[in-house]
Amino acid sequence: MTEFDLVGIGNALVDVVVQADDGFLAEHDLDKGGMMLIDPDRADFLYSKMGPATESSGGSCGNTMAGFASFGGCGAYIGKVRDDDFGKVFRHDMNAIGVTFRTPAGDGTSTGRCLVLVTPDAQRTMCTYLGAATELQADDIDGDLIKAAAVTYLEGYLFDPPEAKAAFVRAAEMAHAAGRKVAITLSDSFCVDRHRDSFVHLVDSHIDILFANEDEIMSLYQVDNFDDALQAVRGRCEVACLTRSEKGSVIMSGDEVHVVDAEPTTQVIDTTGAGDQFAAGFLYGYTQGRSLAESGKLGGIAAAEVIAHYGARPEVELSSLLPGG
Amino acid sequence: MTEFDLVGIGNALVDVVVQADDGFLAEHDLDKGGMMLIDPDRADFLYSKMGPATESSGGSCGNTMAGFASFGGCGAYIGKVRDDDFGKVFRHDMNAIGVTFRTPAGDGTSTGRCLVLVTPDAQRTMCTYLGAATELQADDIDGDLIKAAAVTYLEGYLFDPPEAKAAFVRAAEMAHAAGRKVAITLSDSFCVDRHRDSFVHLVDSHIDILFANEDEIMSLYQVDNFDDALQAVRGRCEVACLTRSEKGSVIMSGDEVHVVDAEPTTQVIDTTGAGDQFAAGFLYGYTQGRSLAESGKLGGIAAAEVIAHYGARPEVELSSLLPGG
Repeated sequence: MTEFDLVGIGNALVDVVVQADDGFLAEHDLDKGGMMLIDPDRADFLYSKMGPATESSGGSCGNTMAGFASFGGCGAYIGKVRDDDFGKVFRHDMNAIGVTFRTPAGDGTSTGRCLVLVTPDAQRTMCTYLGAATELQADDIDGDLIKAAAVTYLEGYLFDPPEAKAAFVRAAEMAHAAGRKVAITLSDSFCVDRHRDSFVHLVDSHIDILFANEDEIMSLYQVDNFDDALQAVRGRCEVACLTRSEKGSVIMSGDEVHVVDAEPTTQVIDTTGAGDQFAAGFLYGYTQGRSLAESGKLGGIAAAEVIAHYGARPEVELSSLLPGG
Repeated sequence: MTEFDLVGIGNALVDVVVQADDGFLAEHDLDKGGMMLIDPDRADFLYSKMGPATESSGGSCGNTMAGFASFGGCGAYIGKVRDDDFGKVFRHDMNAIGVTFRTPAGDGTSTGRCLVLVTPDAQRTMCTYLGAATELQADDIDGDLIKAAAVTYLEGYLFDPPEAKAAFVRAAEMAHAAGRKVAITLSDSFCVDRHRDSFVHLVDSHIDILFANEDEIMSLYQVDNFDDALQAVRGRCEVACLTRSEKGSVIMSGDEVHVVDAEPTTQVIDTTGAGDQFAAGFLYGYTQGRSLAESGKLGGIAAAEVIAHYGARPEVELSSLLPGG
């Protein structure tokens, strides 16, 4: 029995969500569906060209922690904000959902933000200014939290800020030294492209539970179909959770393989956040001692909830969607 | 022909919108459906008790300007923010919707915010920390804008910060000196209670176009039914626009009286913002030289759009809803 079920480490970001059309993406050279890193000048420029927006707490791992807490899991978060309005928003929302968040605020660059352009086809195109998230350092990794959590969960986007990558390895070592598990999500295929060698090495040497979608796992092992990726990842970590949108997911652990169908959805409004919520559901099941198949189903339930509305965090208590609950 | 159709003056606020239940309102002594002014300590305390929230630009008059611009009207806004994250959000959103906003940012207290608690019955209960909005002074009233706009529109909430009340009178005098019209909305019945004598005097001496809902106009003249209020306001200003939710509106000017039915709505999700958008539609029609009855209908169209979703600003281009458009 640990104090926390899950501690997440991620880039702490506020989402600035705006409706946009394909013309806007083309005019500003933005790859639809991807996540691009941008510098502050570019962030200011794009923001000045965007329509009226809505702000809310985001960050891939932050979204996962929100889903995890919504299922009833006991979680903590490590990430870097500044003590500005957006930093206060991020901290408030973590506290409000019952996730322990005590990483000290930085006093340098402003809280990071992700400009999220939602096109009429329900896709999200993201331009991230990392801001204070780049200041997350190995010293910010709260060893007491890591040791107190059954699983440490890391987002692949952390490989973008160089200091965070070091923090990442520190966290994995601390967790394993305490006999805990380490999980990671590859985040997106562009992120895998940027850091492929590091990710391959990391999975082999530090990761127990891997989350990836079809594009990401094919990019990681540079193969051109899903089954080849499946064979490539087999045996490289304790559990691999591979998500395939409407095709559901494949969960593998040693010789055990589960093909889990997607949950039915009534509508698809905004698809991204699905991966974050799949991880939330799977990790909730896993840390509660449920089977891999059941845990995969919980991942699918959380993903189906979040794609049915705008925004990357659940709008209902996910605990109310637990089968038989 | 003027450069601007409308210039609005209001408390520049960012809305912090959260779902809440009746128990939360009771526990914290909040009057459902009203707008309470709170100090920074109370704002921090309530915020710390609230669930995860979404931030977006608000302010009654700001919402009206958003609707006005969405119809295609040419507008400007005067209001006070600080140059912090929330102030930048407010300024960005004004610019993004095409409303001229050039009031210099303050360097004192932080940008004001309105904690908006949405209960399951679709009502909004608002707790406002005015912040930088209290620093709006007579000197901030941009005479060039006032002279260049056919109508100057003021929100009643401006009577809460003392300096803003003086700014308000200054604006009305400038507008009339330039041969322009002055409009006001009474904002809410609690606001009328706080400032009844000032409002009665103001309507008699400075106002051409008055917006009020049923509760507000009955409170203003301390009568207990709508018809008595109608008789009381008659002849006191050039145009009175009285809104009655699902009963539609009554528009009066001298001997001319129009009873305008409400527009049909498919769903009612979140009712406040209806008054702000009614004013937007009416003033768009009025400044385009449409009849009072047509202008009232445009008010109803804008109100019906905004109550069908969360949030106090329109989600579609209101120009697309113009009859015959």
